[in-house]
Amino acid sequence: MGWKRSERLIDMTNYFIEHPNTLISLPFFSERYGAAKSSVSEDISILKDTFERQGIGKLVTIPGAAGGVKFYVKVKDELVKPFVEELCQFIENPNRLLPGGYLYMADIIGNPVLMDQVGRMLASKFAERSIDAVMTVATKGIPLAYATAKYLNVPVVIVRRDYKITEGPTVSINYVSGSSKRIQTMLLAKRSLKEGAKVLIVDDFMKAGGTINGMISLLKEFNADYEGIAVLVEANDVENRLVDEYTSIVKLQNVDVHNETITVREGNYFTKGE
Amino acid sequence: MGWKRSERLIDMTNYFIEHPNTLISLPFFSERYGAAKSSVSEDISILKDTFERQGIGKLVTIPGAAGGVKFYVKVKDELVKPFVEELCQFIENPNRLLPGGYLYMADIIGNPVLMDQVGRMLASKFAERSIDAVMTVATKGIPLAYATAKYLNVPVVIVRRDYKITEGPTVSINYVSGSSKRIQTMLLAKRSLKEGAKVLIVDDFMKAGGTINGMISLLKEFNADYEGIAVLVEANDVENRLVDEYTSIVKLQNVDVHNETITVREGNYFTKGE
Repeated sequence: MGWKRSERLIDMTNYFIEHPNTLISLPFFSERYGAAKSSVSEDISILKDTFERQGIGKLVTIPGAAGGVKFYVKVKDELVKPFVEELCQFIENPNRLLPGGYLYMADIIGNPVLMDQVGRMLASKFAERSIDAVMTVATKGIPLAYATAKYLNVPVVIVRRDYKITEGPTVSINYVSGSSKRIQTMLLAKRSLKEGAKVLIVDDFMKAGGTINGMISLLKEFNADYEGIAVLVEANDVENRLVDEYTSIVKLQNVDVHNETITVREGNYFTKGE
Repeated sequence: MGWKRSERLIDMTNYFIEHPNTLISLPFFSERYGAAKSSVSEDISILKDTFERQGIGKLVTIPGAAGGVKFYVKVKDELVKPFVEELCQFIENPNRLLPGGYLYMADIIGNPVLMDQVGRMLASKFAERSIDAVMTVATKGIPLAYATAKYLNVPVVIVRRDYKITEGPTVSINYVSGSSKRIQTMLLAKRSLKEGAKVLIVDDFMKAGGTINGMISLLKEFNADYEGIAVLVEANDVENRLVDEYTSIVKLQNVDVHNETITVREGNYFTKGE
């Protein structure tokens, strides 16, 4: 039984969203729907236009026998700007203030829909670069790393600060934390990252960048390299930042413990070219 | 400018997938597309049929002035069975064996597309129950907890084993690890869970169930309760399991260190009613 166009479009939308960054051959869809290749091609051109207009993503057609079509997530800046503004206001709530000027962020990190949206934004920046894995450090960077990696269709590599028996052999390095200047250790399971891999480093928060710098050192031990660095929140007013090239969603402009005010601004996401 | 039906169906598919478990009013779609309410109703009935047939999800219409339509993720067992079989075979690879009979699982936990699929399966089981939050314990349960929570559209609550300054005031409990019989501590930020919340507990692995039992004790301190327990892998041959009601995707049937074989079977996901 052949499918109606409307049914094909619904199923294909879901299929592409479930399979980002994956080459799908046209015969696959022809067989799936019992439809002529020309009908499937028309479907794809309808999808392509609507995906682009709505900031859902980009469909790229690769011609030839080994070709097909690939879906990349691609949000539109003007559609996600209001979301980032809302996020800034949400972080500015003075109830977040903890002793020592720390901010309670577990509700933000703990919101999977919000993390998914930020992951989609980050993946949009890096989707057409060749990224082999997303790297983060346990624990708070994990949700955003997964949200991003899912849209890039690459594995997540989790760096730890403590050894676990279930990791097998590990590689460890020492690094200097940027703000406290203490020597710390981080480690990564040896078999979790391939030699020469190109990695996107994702974390929830960056102050001086010591932790991210540690991850970069760890990458060197795997003969791997980073293609980009992305964080949800960057702290402002950092002397001697150890990392210079990065993408941030929001920037912690000021935390005034005395007057109990937090000021948060857009990060460099919208202004920085990639 | 009004939208064509095909364009509306594509955008609505994406919109529903992005907003699971959320009541959306028909006027919202009418305005979004400049379309008559009757056209939107027809669109929804086309979507409903295709979503159900393809195991994408369920659209439930709530009548009345405060009504609308709600999307629940709902996979079809027969469509995900081959995925679970493949997963079993994938885990059976003897290269996973680590000293002490532990298994290397970081590649499975580190695969966001795989975690997303399992999260979708678990959310399908619990989507129509009233769940307020998904709870897990750091670190390895986190990816599956987020994948599940995203489809349930509820927050994730992460229990820790060590104190972090960014959590604010915490509640801690001691519990007895089921297999090693050691006394351990777990803690949760006080403001991360509301009194009386109904929680779905998600973890990557369950042996005797000590960790999960610990989470249940912690819930009591919040006057909260669990609505379900779900794990990716359950170990077999456990004497005195501390937890009796749970859903598992796969079951570790046997780990033979001497002969270097691992036997993995389907868990109770397909056989257990909820």
